Amino acid sequence: MKKLINDPQNVVTESVQGFGLAHADLVAVHTDPLFVARVGGAVQGKVGLVSGGGSGHEPLHAGFVGHGMLDAAVPGAMFTSPTPDQIAPAFTAADGGAGVLAIVKNYTGDVLNFETAVELAEAEDVEVRTVLVNDDVAVEDSLYTAGRRGVAGTVAVEKIAGAAAERGDDLAAVTAVAERVVANVRTMGVALTACTVPHAGRPSFDLPEDEVEIGIGIHGEPGRHRIPLASADEITGMLVTAVADDLALTEGERVLLLVNGMGGTPASELYVVYGQARRLLEARGVEVTRSLVGSYVTSLEMQGASVTVLRLDDELTALWDAPVHTAALRW
Amino acid sequence: MKKLINDPQNVVTESVQGFGLAHADLVAVHTDPLFVARVGGAVQGKVGLVSGGGSGHEPLHAGFVGHGMLDAAVPGAMFTSPTPDQIAPAFTAADGGAGVLAIVKNYTGDVLNFETAVELAEAEDVEVRTVLVNDDVAVEDSLYTAGRRGVAGTVAVEKIAGAAAERGDDLAAVTAVAERVVANVRTMGVALTACTVPHAGRPSFDLPEDEVEIGIGIHGEPGRHRIPLASADEITGMLVTAVADDLALTEGERVLLLVNGMGGTPASELYVVYGQARRLLEARGVEVTRSLVGSYVTSLEMQGASVTVLRLDDELTALWDAPVHTAALRW
Repeated sequence: MKKLINDPQNVVTESVQGFGLAHADLVAVHTDPLFVARVGGAVQGKVGLVSGGGSGHEPLHAGFVGHGMLDAAVPGAMFTSPTPDQIAPAFTAADGGAGVLAIVKNYTGDVLNFETAVELAEAEDVEVRTVLVNDDVAVEDSLYTAGRRGVAGTVAVEKIAGAAAERGDDLAAVTAVAERVVANVRTMGVALTACTVPHAGRPSFDLPEDEVEIGIGIHGEPGRHRIPLASADEITGMLVTAVADDLALTEGERVLLLVNGMGGTPASELYVVYGQARRLLEARGVEVTRSLVGSYVTSLEMQGASVTVLRLDDELTALWDAPVHTAALRW
Repeated sequence: MKKLINDPQNVVTESVQGFGLAHADLVAVHTDPLFVARVGGAVQGKVGLVSGGGSGHEPLHAGFVGHGMLDAAVPGAMFTSPTPDQIAPAFTAADGGAGVLAIVKNYTGDVLNFETAVELAEAEDVEVRTVLVNDDVAVEDSLYTAGRRGVAGTVAVEKIAGAAAERGDDLAAVTAVAERVVANVRTMGVALTACTVPHAGRPSFDLPEDEVEIGIGIHGEPGRHRIPLASADEITGMLVTAVADDLALTEGERVLLLVNGMGGTPASELYVVYGQARRLLEARGVEVTRSLVGSYVTSLEMQGASVTVLRLDDELTALWDAPVHTAALRW
């Protein structure tokens, strides 16, 4: 295992502390328990947004803390849910009196620990609602999940719900818009290589040199099938078809297209995938009106990519376009 | 070789075209010859900024085309200089009547081809000055270079010179500020793994599983030495010491600290390096007043990182802070 780390047991804490130093204008890092909150604390009267999950998917989630997006992010150990006693204080820190929306990727550990944290917070009179993100169309159940997994579509949920909270929507309205994004966003990914969790010290799975895994999960969970290494156009075709069919996209619809790198993928390859994904959507009569290309929901150093499509309407477009100022997303 | 590409011979063109589609609000892609320019063309009366070099280092340079930074970028083949007949039209496209500054990383191929392109452009009455970036302190001469190599410090040169051009400085003044950045910026990197150029099909060099290369070049050129895999803190110490000593940083000085990923490095590791680099600079009495952490000057899927330090003064700080709107850098 070759990594720029010190003790594998401390990598998350050291990394989050470095993140806090680099972005002290945006975030404050709380170390006991570990979570990241907006600098200056909760915004009074605004719905607070909190997300979290296992580490190793950076910039998700801490990279999205700031104006127009999250109020707090809770990093668990690598590929491991944060604990309820980490999450509950993040709810409290994010609560400006208008309640908190928890954005949870659909993995059993996350779901259970966020549920417990909600109970802890509500015992202290913090109102919390939860939205589950389950955008991965690859498989119905998976290694750590009942139902679909939550993957790169989470970025769209966090951005758009964050904009709704920032414009002053109440908790019911922010929750409703987050649910509307979940209902309209789909993702599928591909892995070219596995990745290695530091404290495990060896790759999470084996992938032969001449095969790729279509429908990979962001923790390396099995996807739909393995195929011999194919061209970018062929692989992109499989991802776009799965996503667009599941969304039942029809001619004339507008979408956001997100091509996400898994951590070890050169930007040049992501743009090759983007170009083909866009052509394929346009061939269906679908108009790509918003785009995002980069490594936003990663799996450590895994090579691969995912294609996310969000069906847009005027409101979702306006919320996507609203100003955002975080470490990883800014406009 | 596992890559999300189609024909290795077309990857640069396909990628740049995808980039142009994704960022059509910022850039226009010219395909014959291949270069990327600001959408809407040259800004009249403003000094034009042009950079370029081999592809495989994305987002450098096309990712930095836009308001407050470059006017045009010229992508060569992977790890190969663009040709003079690509560069000269980019000069013309960037010229708003106030002349053009070419920002060239110090590699023999780039230097020669930009020189020829300057002659071609001047024959058409476009005035071009050139600044050479040579921030890599690792080695004095290298595989493709007489003198020091130009690496991640290029981002600072392009950002700060871009801001100077945007505020209306004339060609001499923009050139002078670019040269001032070059005089005050230093970088050294480390490779944990090699990378594979698509048309070569095999890794550029061999690096044993238990060794890292200190002082690696961004094309995998040899650095200072190979050492057994060490901790992030130890490796960061070597990089910071080399950079800070070469800059002759003294107590009380202010700096920009850039921790750059080589393409395949998880963000979590970059922040571990950042935290330690910052502590080491502070231990010297140096104040880190500006920071940038991310993969900006990459070597395809190479795992590793570089540490760049730029000595700041009030003017360089103000120019760094000035608004920028490009695909890869925006504030």
